[in-house]
Amino acid sequence: MAEGRIQDRRFASRVMPADAAAALIGDGTRVGVSGFAGAGYPKAVPSALARRIADAHERGEAFALSVFTGASTGPDLDGVLAATDGIDLLMPYQSDPVTRARINAGQMDYLDVHLSHVAQMVWEGFFGHLDVAVVEVAGITPDGHLMPSTSVGNNKTWLDLADRIVLEVNAGQPAGLEGMHDVYYGTALPPHRWPIPIVGPADRIGSPYLHCTPDKVVAVVLTDAPDRPTAYGVADERSSLIAGHVLELLEHEVRRGRLGRQLLPIQSGVGNIANAVLGELDGGPFGPLTAYSEVIQDAMLGLLRSGTMSSASATAFCLSEGAIADLTADITTRADGYREKIVLRPQEISNHPEVVRRLGCIAMNGMIEADIYGNVNSTHVAGSQILNGIGGSGDFARNAYLSIFMATSTTHDDAISRIVPMVSHVDHTEHDVHVVVTEQGIADLRGLSPKKRARQVIEHCAHPDYRDALSDYFERAIAQAPGKHTPHVLAEALTWHVASLRDGTMRDVNAR
Amino acid sequence: MAEGRIQDRRFASRVMPADAAAALIGDGTRVGVSGFAGAGYPKAVPSALARRIADAHERGEAFALSVFTGASTGPDLDGVLAATDGIDLLMPYQSDPVTRARINAGQMDYLDVHLSHVAQMVWEGFFGHLDVAVVEVAGITPDGHLMPSTSVGNNKTWLDLADRIVLEVNAGQPAGLEGMHDVYYGTALPPHRWPIPIVGPADRIGSPYLHCTPDKVVAVVLTDAPDRPTAYGVADERSSLIAGHVLELLEHEVRRGRLGRQLLPIQSGVGNIANAVLGELDGGPFGPLTAYSEVIQDAMLGLLRSGTMSSASATAFCLSEGAIADLTADITTRADGYREKIVLRPQEISNHPEVVRRLGCIAMNGMIEADIYGNVNSTHVAGSQILNGIGGSGDFARNAYLSIFMATSTTHDDAISRIVPMVSHVDHTEHDVHVVVTEQGIADLRGLSPKKRARQVIEHCAHPDYRDALSDYFERAIAQAPGKHTPHVLAEALTWHVASLRDGTMRDVNAR
Repeated sequence: MAEGRIQDRRFASRVMPADAAAALIGDGTRVGVSGFAGAGYPKAVPSALARRIADAHERGEAFALSVFTGASTGPDLDGVLAATDGIDLLMPYQSDPVTRARINAGQMDYLDVHLSHVAQMVWEGFFGHLDVAVVEVAGITPDGHLMPSTSVGNNKTWLDLADRIVLEVNAGQPAGLEGMHDVYYGTALPPHRWPIPIVGPADRIGSPYLHCTPDKVVAVVLTDAPDRPTAYGVADERSSLIAGHVLELLEHEVRRGRLGRQLLPIQSGVGNIANAVLGELDGGPFGPLTAYSEVIQDAMLGLLRSGTMSSASATAFCLSEGAIADLTADITTRADGYREKIVLRPQEISNHPEVVRRLGCIAMNGMIEADIYGNVNSTHVAGSQILNGIGGSGDFARNAYLSIFMATSTTHDDAISRIVPMVSHVDHTEHDVHVVVTEQGIADLRGLSPKKRARQVIEHCAHPDYRDALSDYFERAIAQAPGKHTPHVLAEALTWHVASLRDGTMRDVNAR
Repeated sequence: MAEGRIQDRRFASRVMPADAAAALIGDGTRVGVSGFAGAGYPKAVPSALARRIADAHERGEAFALSVFTGASTGPDLDGVLAATDGIDLLMPYQSDPVTRARINAGQMDYLDVHLSHVAQMVWEGFFGHLDVAVVEVAGITPDGHLMPSTSVGNNKTWLDLADRIVLEVNAGQPAGLEGMHDVYYGTALPPHRWPIPIVGPADRIGSPYLHCTPDKVVAVVLTDAPDRPTAYGVADERSSLIAGHVLELLEHEVRRGRLGRQLLPIQSGVGNIANAVLGELDGGPFGPLTAYSEVIQDAMLGLLRSGTMSSASATAFCLSEGAIADLTADITTRADGYREKIVLRPQEISNHPEVVRRLGCIAMNGMIEADIYGNVNSTHVAGSQILNGIGGSGDFARNAYLSIFMATSTTHDDAISRIVPMVSHVDHTEHDVHVVVTEQGIADLRGLSPKKRARQVIEHCAHPDYRDALSDYFERAIAQAPGKHTPHVLAEALTWHVASLRDGTMRDVNAR
């Protein structure tokens, strides 16, 4: 079946098994791999490569790769490679448990990069020369163009820059994807850059296909396998409360005349809270909405289906099994469905500061913790331990019209407060955080000096169990700190995290 | 003399003394004031206003203002107002000693904002309605256009948005400024934004004049006073060493083919180190250079004069007394001098992320401290005490082609290390810092995972007196931290700052 997806004979002649393709990739290779948010990653070559690496290691030979991706992939990519100790350096994002464990054990180098920066930094040569691209596509047209899969990510860059290209043609991806992509071929390095001509979130400025030099294609591997589905939990009470607060905030902005009923293009992270917010928007008082975001998750498909949202731009899908089936059925049978409403772009465009600022996105991102002054930690547990990565949150938060960060006020058993005196790692500075929302309420920090921000955050966002301790810290900081602009008691600022590491809870932080 | 600068009779009829103009501004007013880096701030009305406020306070009446500026102004603006307790809220930047002291005493609210964000946030209404604009101009044309002074800053926004306008016409500013400005009138709020059509650093896309509705002008005040001159110290040995390292880095980039001999548009902060770097570039191996920066300081005039730099774009001058005289003489007498080579723009354009990223600036900014993982603190001494503000460093660092942060490795008496285990405040995250330079050397952090960054920073940038203690911290962090991606010993991460507050030095940090 996959053979039918290869309509250009030049490519058909290079079909080979995954093992043979993997054999073309040696120790020390820098590999650019497709995949973003579990969508469109290669399904066969990475496992074959992992076997090859394990064999080499068994023979006592060194074998490791530098792996560049779009964002998170699937366990049968970075997970399987990490498990064999086959990755020297991974960038720019990860969410695989095996990979994460190895990084946090200090066994693997990982680089956490703004997703909009990756392509340009590789073009600039900051990561060295790219040897091989391994890219999943949904098909190859008669004139040798590549039909992108369920994510675009950095694929254009990998195909342009790599010396050699390995394509996986996945017949499991719906043929109806054709026409949904918009691959912009107008990027350049300075001093040769021009404005990116997007002025509306659904604008198409590029090609529906990826281009590549056929001579660089050293292998074509046929697959028929689904993407890793994303597991979305049922919205719990706290996610619903957060979603309610976000809608209240948006309603407030509309009442003040700062937003119209169509709002502005929405950017939403992934996860249960984000899903709850998007769900709450469905059938709500706003619309028709648009999205200029990184991924299209279940709830966004819902918004498109109901007509609450008229168009959505992203670089990848991030769907549950049911939503994958819905998407596939829709784009296979309907002419006026998702295909007309969805644009998938390279991630340097979906996340581009220029475009995000121009469109004036409403950025809604999750976080690990926020401090009383509005600094946000998106990446590190207790300062040291990487969770996933910054992803595109910085691209959007810095350039958004309205930048919202959301989390529950505590972890599920209330043992850890997500509102702390000082975050243990900063990904988004006080300058980039407009609003913090927890199930407790909204802290609107716009226009507030640090001490006023602290009162908002403690009063409106902290969990009642931790509110007094935070107030106590804050008041003592005002009394004791030599500088009273952003008062801290530095000897105590991180004791909440120290307690959490020592006791598993922040409850007894003051029982020192 | 100043009368001759007012060539439109509608404005001439509103000339009045500064006291009369100040009398039009009441308690609780939000005032947008001109001024950036000590250039182009109003010289007379703020002092008159301060007297009015002091009188009111003496009578037991409340009187305070919200003051929005471009960036730093002069002591006879925010300093004199702050001294009378006349400012409720100041934003987005300050460098005045009186102002700073009041902020750090907790007596005044200050908001530290990315300079490119200010105009749009005020347009968006995040700071409330703007009541009055007080703007210095160099003259008024026969058809009522305003000839900007030595800074543009946020003046366009203040003039557009304020209900009432007070103009100071300063005959002390050289008439030759006419024609150097480029005020872009194409900005809008989303969803009505279009690409900013700058593709080269010297492009002119706007008007040489500021526009205003004459009916809104309630007062015109005549002045004849110089800008606050900036004091530049003599380059000391450590600044020269830093400058040498920066040139070495640039040379390295050229050799690797990542930059041409013309480099890319330079952004440089203010201060002795920045001045030393620009000085070193003069007559060096690169050119012709361009600048797309925030301010034009003495050394940049030098580069323009020598021909090493062909054009410079900024939003303000920031000059010593001698350089002010040089500028004045040049633009008064020469047709082919600075006037043709300098463009002064609104700060939302000089610092615009879209343009900075498109042009691919080389961003060179100072810092207070950096940590071993490459996070940078630009604003707070020991976490609590504001120094000046983030200014435009975030606008440039995040979007630059190459983002360099520079400082001496210690304070002048070596008592405080500027390389620390964890910065006490984060303004630029690990994601936005490419290279750290001290007089000790260069830490090129591009493409390095956190632990590799730490080794670079400790080995190449830390002062020898502190290197062992930093290595000791780092090695123990690797051993002890539960997460080994960015290993920290949280109980110790800020003890260096605690020691500095307690002992005035970090030398004895390990003698706990």
